[in-house]
This record gives sequence, structure tokens and C-alpha cells, in this order.
Amino acid sequence: MQAPLRIGLLGFGYWGPNLARNFALLDSCRLTTVCDVDVRRHGVVKRLFPGCTVTSVTADLLNSPELDAVIVATPVSTHFELAKAILLAGKHVLIEKPMVTSESQMLVLSEMAAARNLVLMGDYTFLYTAPVHKIKALLDQEDLGALRYFDSVRINLGIFQSDTNVLWDLASHDVAILCFLLDEMPLSVNATGGGGAISNTEALAYLTLNYSSGFLAHIACSWASPVKIRRMLLGGDKKMVLYDDMEPTEKIKIYDTFLSVSSELEKHKLLIDYRLGDISIPKLHVSEALGGVAADFVAACQNGKQPLANATLALRVTRILEAAQRSLDTGGNRVLMSEGV
Amino acid sequence: MQAPLRIGLLGFGYWGPNLARNFALLDSCRLTTVCDVDVRRHGVVKRLFPGCTVTSVTADLLNSPELDAVIVATPVSTHFELAKAILLAGKHVLIEKPMVTSESQMLVLSEMAAARNLVLMGDYTFLYTAPVHKIKALLDQEDLGALRYFDSVRINLGIFQSDTNVLWDLASHDVAILCFLLDEMPLSVNATGGGGAISNTEALAYLTLNYSSGFLAHIACSWASPVKIRRMLLGGDKKMVLYDDMEPTEKIKIYDTFLSVSSELEKHKLLIDYRLGDISIPKLHVSEALGGVAADFVAACQNGKQPLANATLALRVTRILEAAQRSLDTGGNRVLMSEGV
Amino acid sequence: MQAPLRIGLLGFGYWGPNLARNFALLDSCRLTTVCDVDVRRHGVVKRLFPGCTVTSVTADLLNSPELDAVIVATPVSTHFELAKAILLAGKHVLIEKPMVTSESQMLVLSEMAAARNLVLMGDYTFLYTAPVHKIKALLDQEDLGALRYFDSVRINLGIFQSDTNVLWDLASHDVAILCFLLDEMPLSVNATGGGGAISNTEALAYLTLNYSSGFLAHIACSWASPVKIRRMLLGGDKKMVLYDDMEPTEKIKIYDTFLSVSSELEKHKLLIDYRLGDISIPKLHVSEALGGVAADFVAACQNGKQPLANATLALRVTRILEAAQRSLDTGGNRVLMSEGV
Amino acid sequence: MQAPLRIGLLGFGYWGPNLARNFALLDSCRLTTVCDVDVRRHGVVKRLFPGCTVTSVTADLLNSPELDAVIVATPVSTHFELAKAILLAGKHVLIEKPMVTSESQMLVLSEMAAARNLVLMGDYTFLYTAPVHKIKALLDQEDLGALRYFDSVRINLGIFQSDTNVLWDLASHDVAILCFLLDEMPLSVNATGGGGAISNTEALAYLTLNYSSGFLAHIACSWASPVKIRRMLLGGDKKMVLYDDMEPTEKIKIYDTFLSVSSELEKHKLLIDYRLGDISIPKLHVSEALGGVAADFVAACQNGKQPLANATLALRVTRILEAAQRSLDTGGNRVLMSEGV
Repeated sequence: MQAPLRIGLLGFGYWGPNLARNFALLDSCRLTTVCDVDVRRHGVVKRLFPGCTVTSVTADLLNSPELDAVIVATPVSTHFELAKAILLAGKHVLIEKPMVTSESQMLVLSEMAAARNLVLMGDYTFLYTAPVHKIKALLDQEDLGALRYFDSVRINLGIFQSDTNVLWDLASHDVAILCFLLDEMPLSVNATGGGGAISNTEALAYLTLNYSSGFLAHIACSWASPVKIRRMLLGGDKKMVLYDDMEPTEKIKIYDTFLSVSSELEKHKLLIDYRLGDISIPKLHVSEALGGVAADFVAACQNGKQPLANATLALRVTRILEAAQRSLDTGGNRVLMSEGV
Repeated sequence: MQAPLRIGLLGFGYWGPNLARNFALLDSCRLTTVCDVDVRRHGVVKRLFPGCTVTSVTADLLNSPELDAVIVATPVSTHFELAKAILLAGKHVLIEKPMVTSESQMLVLSEMAAARNLVLMGDYTFLYTAPVHKIKALLDQEDLGALRYFDSVRINLGIFQSDTNVLWDLASHDVAILCFLLDEMPLSVNATGGGGAISNTEALAYLTLNYSSGFLAHIACSWASPVKIRRMLLGGDKKMVLYDDMEPTEKIKIYDTFLSVSSELEKHKLLIDYRLGDISIPKLHVSEALGGVAADFVAACQNGKQPLANATLALRVTRILEAAQRSLDTGGNRVLMSEGV
Repeated sequence: MQAPLRIGLLGFGYWGPNLARNFALLDSCRLTTVCDVDVRRHGVVKRLFPGCTVTSVTADLLNSPELDAVIVATPVSTHFELAKAILLAGKHVLIEKPMVTSESQMLVLSEMAAARNLVLMGDYTFLYTAPVHKIKALLDQEDLGALRYFDSVRINLGIFQSDTNVLWDLASHDVAILCFLLDEMPLSVNATGGGGAISNTEALAYLTLNYSSGFLAHIACSWASPVKIRRMLLGGDKKMVLYDDMEPTEKIKIYDTFLSVSSELEKHKLLIDYRLGDISIPKLHVSEALGGVAADFVAACQNGKQPLANATLALRVTRILEAAQRSLDTGGNRVLMSEGV
Repeated sequence: MQAPLRIGLLGFGYWGPNLARNFALLDSCRLTTVCDVDVRRHGVVKRLFPGCTVTSVTADLLNSPELDAVIVATPVSTHFELAKAILLAGKHVLIEKPMVTSESQMLVLSEMAAARNLVLMGDYTFLYTAPVHKIKALLDQEDLGALRYFDSVRINLGIFQSDTNVLWDLASHDVAILCFLLDEMPLSVNATGGGGAISNTEALAYLTLNYSSGFLAHIACSWASPVKIRRMLLGGDKKMVLYDDMEPTEKIKIYDTFLSVSSELEKHKLLIDYRLGDISIPKLHVSEALGGVAADFVAACQNGKQPLANATLALRVTRILEAAQRSLDTGGNRVLMSEGV
């Protein structure tokens, strides 16, 4: 058996404690150091993780020879410089999403990691959930037929952040899921959004992705909704899937429903027919997704296998988000993915 | 008491029977003639409306001196010519939505109706529902505060039509509601969509409307969803409203929830605070909306008062849909409402 | 083709109009006469059914040689005498549920009908719904395994009636469904309930039925609930079914869930194991149940085939309800079905 | 500040770990010893609670002078003897529900605790939830008017236990809530139920409680349902409350709905009128109920104040459950609460 991976955590704000707890549950690693610039948070760390060193000096963590890997859970704007320093220090790195703010940053990190044979992974939590794996299996078995559309709504009353917007914060989940499910990249993207007359950054955003096959994806995200909705539809020409993450157990519904070319012609109606059939709800073995993130990261560091949320996927996600941002910045105009990327 | 308004109906396909039934329930009018080119439908008309004349010749209806008003429930592409002929024949006209296919057509009809002192009304059914009236009342009482956003999802497995797309078919409801609720027109619109790799017309479409105040509206519509969703959010800076039309009785939820400028400053967080408060569900007196459409049309014809779904509102709705279509046709690019309108 | 069955309707209050509308839609019968003692209702009848004779004199209807069958939709306390008179007049009879108030009354009617070769049928509407037929098919195919329990909740804010209680009004639906699904009669019943401190008749009631196999059925019904619930569970040792009649389309859910004798023994736990598996939601062809009631009655009158809701079933339902009433009257004590029946 | 209360835990099976975690989170106590006869569970205890002594010998815990209080989370049949020994050892005791198996046992414990000035408390978790406190507040403010009925459904697929039945396991929650909300005890109870043809103990049970005021309570509980339902209705003559514990945030709905004596008299209808009004959903501050149990127990041990789930309430709950059991054992017959208690 291998020696446990020694892990440091940068940032113990909103998400850091969840990461820490999940890594602490693994036998294959040790959470040895936590760094947060806010000393008021140090007490909680000491209480929850008695054996852990706590510091407010980032360099302590970067320079420690005792650490094999570092998790970055600080604000987005700091990710790139921190990740560079971690890789330069010869340590594996896991970065909270959104990982960086541009494709060029991700390219730099990706090349640094590859050159040093280090793991560079993103915390794309949804890639580690039972529903997303079920959908992936349905696609692999060609149960859905040719894909028609993807439609995701991800809205709730969220924390308005100043160094990112809702697109990078929430739509990044859906973009990562799309990149995980499909090999294909979109031809073009459009994004619209706004601050809802209250914030300078986008608190609501809408992203459309067009693929060469005619497949159409749309993502609606918001920090300003009084109801929490996490609902995703994936339509194929044989079956359709509804993934409702707010359902406690019945998260996936498979509709034996399809659209097909009709044999009957009627004036003013298209030759498209449809069928509403049975529905099935597969039993899923629900577990905390972050546990899967932690296990995959540790395994990748220890045995060199690429994690699901690897650098290649991270590059694809970032390319799409950057193109979407460019569309947002130009009033929603279409941005071709081939432009400059 | 006035003599009952004598009404003819053009088209007894999908929506025509609903219109006929609702007009037949009114004391203030008589459904005297029904015209459908498909003679197979004549039997049903005779059975359901024994006293009614049935024909397959449109001219019979247009030329009848016995008719005061005509309802147009034929395919969209025929609406404009039929409505022109009806107005020329000196009869009031009610047109199923989408009323026409361009703003210029609507302008022609609008001027013809005004010149002849005839009623020109659209069947924007949702303007006659208790939930929309409740929302209007909340706005009139300034209960919601300054409006931030509108977000509507209107999807189901629908009939793919060949002479219109899902934007004109379904988003027209939301655009009509927006025009009814707000005096302001949007500055610009963006629309994306596609046929889901199956049809030439858009079966899924997404429409963003930007207003000068920063108010943002988004409408998602689809004919290709295995689940039926009719959900609308209207966010104000004092309260927010959820209108879920699939709920049998609890259609409107008012959230005492708001976003506000925070007094506390924290790095990387915006100065935006929020509060999730109580929710109230007002008792609504639900009745069939089409009954309200019928009553408003008949009253307008008889006493000259403008109906809610009047020509001015219809013009605004059509302007927005035409701009949206232009955006769709140019890959989702922003279309300013001042351009050419 | 046979001559249409000529039908008269007694009672045009709450349920009568629904019966009238459904019979009027059939080609195989004619609604020729409607009788209601309240002359204020005559106008509506004339308007909705122009060809129909309207009267307030019951004898007109009973004595009419023009009628083949009569529907009884008057208050419960009048059913028995009316049905007797109808059968004596040589006409078939359909009686709204609850049909009568005692088993002895039902025996009288049943024997009269049999002697005269007339149809005696109850308006047990749920026997004509797609969900109940689906459950029956699952039982016939032995998909559920040995039956363990039945659990129904049927509550809403209802009209407090003075000549019956909630048990006869609402639980009669569930008892009829049980009698339709199962050949077996219960060994004993217990019923509790009360007026909720407001009415003399029971506005809430709870009925337990014990069967010799160990199968247990429970029915909860209420006129005093602010929410409407129509939810039925049928548990077998192979699968379980949930029938939620408030769901617009997904009324039946089949759970691949079972309880079984465990091979593993643990102290203080029974040797019972369970499995939560997949769920399937069959597509049902939903139509108005009352249409099925009407068609079955007319067909039975015309061709002599027994209807689903026949006199034998009605006798079983009434026996159970009468035993339940006896239990209610004695403080919920167990009443053996063999006692006096 | 007081010295932390030193706590021992007996039983680390299903519920014990939850109790342990919640006590461990409190500053005011220390979880110092855990005892479980199953040594396979000792590893988990050591891992989760590093500072804690672990033993499989109950006497170690009972005799330890280092302990001030003991929590009993062992199988029901062992509770009474263990609690007696704990009280004899001069320690406070918290007992998982169902606390004991008869009123006489509870009387013995209650008198022992009182004589020694020790805390005897039951883990009636629901008494520490925000929804139950909200309902209590509504009653205290007389918002609901005179109470008419209580109706609870508490069903799911549960562990079949051999030393208790579903009535003592699940209905005990509702009985405790009733005893907390109301000062009045029922006049009589009826209980029916069965094993669903699979177990010797009751896996499904139905309990009716009759009060002198006409107030009627009914509790349905099951270990054999494929769906989990936790739904409680409390009807007053001014308002009604729905408590749905499966709702993530909107657990309480208050219906401005009432039943009243009607001024209008119609034949065959009672003089009872009703109104369906607005609904309000109060914002509740949801936290883990077991944290409240832990805090209340520690506070009671330290300052002598009676906890909510005190011995008096526990006696009332046990009296009702024992009467219900007697009814179950006699075929559901009515058991007067005055009989022998």
C-alpha cells in the first residue's frame, strides 16, 4: 500500500470546509495543512481537524516539503497565480471551479502540469454524481438515439460575487457536464445576461451553444431567483432524459418519448410526429459527489491515471466560457468557437 | 338590452372549437356561422351547435350581412388576408395568436380597423387569466418594488407547425404578458434557437429582452420537451412572484424576498445582500380565460371600449416578435428595437 | 344497428349535469327527459340540451312509455324508493353512489332487477378509469405478487351533506375499487370518525378492512381538508403501486420494491429485508371516466351483458359500508362480516 | 462557566452515531465514553471521536464516576433495565424513543428520577423542530381557532424491528407532538393494524384518538410504503395547517380556510359552509432537531430546568401508546383512557 498523499488546502471560506471534510474521510490521503488569510477561521479548522497545521501565510504551504498536493479554494481571481506557484513547487493541484478566467491561463497551467508530470484537475463536482454517470451510460449504450437538444436551468438565490459572474459560477457546471457527455465542441455560442439592475456583474445569464449536428444546448443561470431549480433536459430522437437535482431520490426520469418524421401529411403541420410513452426512473446509488472528486484526485496523484475532470476537459470548458463571455460583452452576438481559439 | 352580436368563426381545427364553446356560453352574442374548408369537421359543428350554419366557403361568411364580427382561427399564414377581407366587409375581427407575421401587416390592419371604427383584437388568452391580473395588481400597488427581471419557461411536447415557429407560437404569450404588464418597450432583443436537428423551423427558441432600466426578460420555449412547464418568475427589489400555471390552484406565489445593497463589505463579495422571507399564495378565482376573451371582444364590439388585447398592444407584441425573428435569422445577434420600427 | 336507448335523468344538481353531458355524447342513446324538483335549474337544462323534455314531476318520468332507462342523481335518502319505482315501471336504472343506505335495500333492488331482467348499475366512476384498469391488469398478470396492503387517502374540502356521511360519500369509491380488484371479501371491518366538532354526521372517517390472507386495507376520507389528496398504495410482495389521481398524467407509479424474508439474522431486527428498485410510470390513455360509465350502462341495457358496476358488486360494496357504519356506531369496535350478512 | 457535562452513550447502531455527533458539537458537554456490545463498531467510534473511551461492557459505563449522564440508544426491550441502572448509579438519562414498553415502567423511572433529582428525558426529536414550534406558536396565539382534527401520515420503507412495532416506532412521534401541542388527553383510542401478511409485529398501524371536545386525531404509520410521506394536518375552525416534512424549505402552510355554520339552508346539505382563502408559508429557521435535543438535555442536567421532552410528557405519551396497543390486541376495539390508568 502506498503512503498517504499529503494534502494542503488554500482557502477555508465557503467551499473549503466541504473539500477538507471529504479528503479527511479518505484513507489514502492526509489533510496536513490548511491556509486561510482570515485568522478568524483558524479556530474552526483546529477544532474540526485536530491534527492539521493552520497558517495564514500562503508561502508556508507552497514551500512545505511535507506536501504532495494542494487544493485551491480561494476567490477566482487568485487561482491562476496560486496554481502556477503550486505547480512550480512540484505539487499536484486541484482547483475549485471556475478554475481560471481565460483559456490562455488554462493553457499555461496545462503545459506546466504536463511538463512536470503533475496532476491538474478541476473541482467539477457534477462529473462525480450518479445522475450524470447514468446519463453518460445511456449515451454510451445509444439509448437516447441522435441527440437533439440540452436545456438546463440552474437558478437560486445566490451570493453575488464581485470577481466573477453567474456564467462562470453556475453555467460552468453545465458546460463541464456537456464536455463530459459529448466529444464534440460547439461551433458557436451566444450569451446574454445582466445584473438585474442591481449589480455590475451578471447575476442572470443565458447561454446558447450551437453544434454542427444541429444539436442545440441552452443554459439559464441566476443568482436572483427565490426558488431553487436544478433541472436539465437532454432530448434524443429515441428517448429523452430529465435530471432534476432537487428531487431527493427520483433524480433521473427517462421518457420513452420521441419526435419522428410523420408518414401523414397535413397542411400547415410539419411532417413531425411525436409519441409520449412510458417513463422509467432508475434506482441510483446516491453518495456525496465531493467524495468522488477527492478519491479521483488522490488516485490520479498516486497512480498517474488521468482524472475525469482533467486538464483537457478543463481547457474545453474554459474555451467555451471565454467565448460566452466575449458574446456577453458584445451584446449577445454570436461568437464562433474557431475565432482565435 | 342590445341585440346579441352575431358572430362567425373561420377555422374549426385545434383552437376553433374552444373559441366556439366560449362564445356560445355568452348571452350577449350568437355563434351563427362556422366555416372550415375541411368538410370532415362539419358534422361535429352541427352536433355541438345545432342552430349554427356550417360552410366550407370563406366568402359565404365574409359576405353574410347577418354577421357583425368574425373570429379567425385558421393557420397563421392565412390570417392577414382574411383579416383584411373581414375589416373591408365592415366586420369586427378577433384573430388567434400569432395574429400576423410582421409589424407592417399589423400596421395595415390596425389602420383599417381605426378608419372603420371596428374592433381589432388578438386572442392573447393569458391577458384574461386570474394570475396575470393578480401580477398586474401587484405592480399597480407597487408591491414588488423596482423590477429586476422576468424569466419564463414555456415548454411541452407540441405540434410542430410548418408555417410558424415556436417563438411566434409560444413566446408570443409571454411577450403579450410583458406588454400588458409594462408600459416600456425593450431597447433590444436577442433570440437563438433551432430545430433540434429535426425540423426546418425553430422547435426550441430563447429570447432575451433588454430594457433601458436594466430590467432583463428571458423567455425559453420549446415544442420538444417531454415535460410540460409553464413557469414564470418576476423579480422586484421588494418582492418576487412565481407564476406556475401547471399548479391546479396555487398558481401564484409571492416571495417576500429581496436583493439589496449590503452595508457589510467583504472582499470578493459584492455589496449585495438578500433575504428569503415568508411566502404567500393568494386565493384566485380561477375561470376559463377564453371566457374572458369572448366577453371582452363582444363588449368592445357592442360599446366601443378598447379590449385589453387591443390593436396597440398587438402592434407592440408584433414589433418585438419581428425583431426577435430578425435576431434568430442573424445568429442571435442583438437587434435594437429602434432599427426600422 | 339498435335503436338508441331512451334515457331519463332524475336530479340535475351537482352530479346530474356531468352524467347528462356524458350520455349526450353517445350515439347509442338519447337523453330525452330531465326531471328536477328545483325549477330554477330547468333553464340550464333547456339551454344545454335543447331537444330534451324538462319536468319537475317525478311521476312524468317514471310513467313515460318513451323511456327505456332512468338515471338517479338525487340525494341519497331518496334513491331506494325511486329505484324501486323505476324497476317496477320496467326500466333499467343507474344509481349515483352511494346507491342505497343498507344491504337489505340493495337486496330488494337486486332481486327486483333480476326478476325483471333489468339492468341495475351503480355509478362507481373509478371502475372506469385507466389507472384502476392498469392496476387490475397488473393483478391479473400477477406482477405484484401476493398482496400485503391497500392504503387510500381521499380528502378535500367538500360539501357537508346531511343525509349521508363521508364514509358513504367518499370511502364508497375505495370500497368499490377493492371489490373490483379482489374476489375476496374482508373478514372484519373497523371504522372510526367524527364530525370534527362541527357536524353531527361524520366529516372525517377511517376504515380498516381485515382479510383472511393477512391482507390489510385502510381508507382515510375527509370533507374537512384544505388540500385535496387522492392517493392509493397497493403493496405486493413483488411490486408496489402508487396511484395518485391528482397527478395530471403520471397517475400510476410501479415500484420494483419488495419486502422479503431475509437470510441474514440480526438481533432485534426481524428477518425481513427490503429492496428499493427502479420505478416505472406506464403511459395511460386518460379519458373521462363518466364516459365509460355511460357506455357500459347503455351497452348493458342493449345487449344484456353485465356492466362492471353490476348489482353483485354493488351488494358487496353495500355490505362492507353497512358493516363499517355499524362499527362507527359502536365506537370503532370490530364488526365481523359474517355477523348477520 | 460550568464544567462540561460528561456524557456516556449506550448503543452505537442506527441512531447512536447521530446522537454522538450532535452532543460532540456542544461546548457544554463532553462525549467521554461509548459502549456497544458489537466490537465491530468500535473502530468507527475511535475514528470519529478520537478522545473517547470505547467499551463493550455496559457496567464500565454505569459504574464510571467520570460520567454525569448517559444516553440510551439500544434496542427498545433493553431500555427499562438500563435506565433503572443508570438512575440508580446517580446519573441523568436520555432515552431514545420509544422509551419503554409500558406505562408502569415509565412510572417507575419517573419516580426514581424525581426522588434522586435526576433528569429523565425522552428523545422525542420532533419537539425540537421549527415546524412543530411554529404550530405551537399558532396555537398559543389562538390563530387556528377551536381545533377540529389532527391527521398524520408517517410512512416509508423502514426496518422491520422484532422487539417493537410500527405504532411504538413511528406513531410515538405523532403522539409526542399531540401531547406537546395539547394539554388535553384523549378520552379513548382505537388502533388497527397488521403485519401485511409478512411479519408478526405490526408493520402498518392506524390510530384514532377521540377527545372530549369532539377533536379527532388520526395517525397512519407504515414500514412498508415505497414512498416516504411525513404529512400532518391540523384543522381549526379559523385556520388549518399543513406540515409536510418532506418539503425542503416550505414545511408549513397555513390555510386561511374554515368551516362554519351556514346561514343558508338547502335541503340535504348541512348548514356547514366553508371558505378556501389565501395560504401563507412562514419562513422557518431550519436546523438539525437533534442539536436541540442535545442542548435541552445538557441544559436540564446543568441547571435543573425541565426539558421539553420531560418525564411528565413521556408518561402521557406512554399511556396513550399502551392504550393503543391494548386496542390493537383486541381487534381495534375502543379503549377508554380512564380504564386502569
